[in-house]
Amino acid sequence: MHFPSVLVEKAVKELSKLPSIGTKSALRLVLHILKQDVYYAESLAEAIQEVRKNIKYCQKCHSISDHNICSICTNQARDKSLICVVEETKDVLAIENTNQYFGQYHVLGGVISPIEGISIADLKIQSLLTRVKEDEVKEIILALSSTMEGDTTSFYLSKKLKEIGVQVTSIARGVPVGGEIEYADEITLARSILNRTEF
Amino acid sequence: MHFPSVLVEKAVKELSKLPSIGTKSALRLVLHILKQDVYYAESLAEAIQEVRKNIKYCQKCHSISDHNICSICTNQARDKSLICVVEETKDVLAIENTNQYFGQYHVLGGVISPIEGISIADLKIQSLLTRVKEDEVKEIILALSSTMEGDTTSFYLSKKLKEIGVQVTSIARGVPVGGEIEYADEITLARSILNRTEF
Repeated sequence: MHFPSVLVEKAVKELSKLPSIGTKSALRLVLHILKQDVYYAESLAEAIQEVRKNIKYCQKCHSISDHNICSICTNQARDKSLICVVEETKDVLAIENTNQYFGQYHVLGGVISPIEGISIADLKIQSLLTRVKEDEVKEIILALSSTMEGDTTSFYLSKKLKEIGVQVTSIARGVPVGGEIEYADEITLARSILNRTEF
Repeated sequence: MHFPSVLVEKAVKELSKLPSIGTKSALRLVLHILKQDVYYAESLAEAIQEVRKNIKYCQKCHSISDHNICSICTNQARDKSLICVVEETKDVLAIENTNQYFGQYHVLGGVISPIEGISIADLKIQSLLTRVKEDEVKEIILALSSTMEGDTTSFYLSKKLKEIGVQVTSIARGVPVGGEIEYADEITLARSILNRTEF
């Protein structure tokens, strides 16, 4: 691809390292930035640098935070006896957007994956066990991916947690709301029949 | 939408001002940046600031450039008697990527559009006429959008250019290569028949 300038080429190269942004999209973004006021490029650059440099991770739940303890962990109105275990901060955001969950979270930082070299020691499992013991937690909801790695991690966690004596539940798997039966895959459909609920 | 941190929210706000990036995509980009090395955020931010602050526009063809005169205008191997008139630098890049054009360019900076408040004086028309007179240009190829505004601009330019006595041509409009006849719109198809070429 031809670039009109070395500066444009460099900006395109950096932007196209972002997920789902190819060279063509990156070039379009750069040409857009060039048409904007110089203050926009400055505030965009500053926001990117600031967020990376100054972001903190909550010392309790390991979610992204502005402070040492995040706003969910410090919120007195939230149920401290209920912890939902997720892989990443984006899962916290997805569940928060439902406005239906009022407990706490615990961000593992991934799932056990020998292929990607993620072992039990790389995940925030020990701190979860400590939280459960110290904070009188009554129930742990596992909300990990429904993949082999996710299921392995859920299985390992449930074993460890049950040893402590805490109730372990898993989010419901089934046909999505608004989804049509005939388009659901066999495993999901089989599970939704097995785990049927009272009407 | 819930944000885990004010810094994340700010970065999302800035990123989602870019074309085709909504709040959700921006959040995904920010979470990706947070997972990368701190140097990536720094070099991305620097590249964005540098390109906006230090970019120049070629004084001859008005395309984006690193220097006062761009690499195409200074290239002695390129035909100086042939100028292709386009709207934006991105059109220059699109034509350059064909590797089939060896003349020069002239970037108008848009097309005449009373709705968007772009008048003749806002476009680089006077400098095009000056170039034609001074540089012994033989042919001007008009490569503007095939919209009402683009056609109006092409018509105005061709009138002005013919007064000077230079040959004015337009890029071919017709059924795209690889395109099927039955899916071509009527106007394109009609034009492709009217402007048929020797086989």
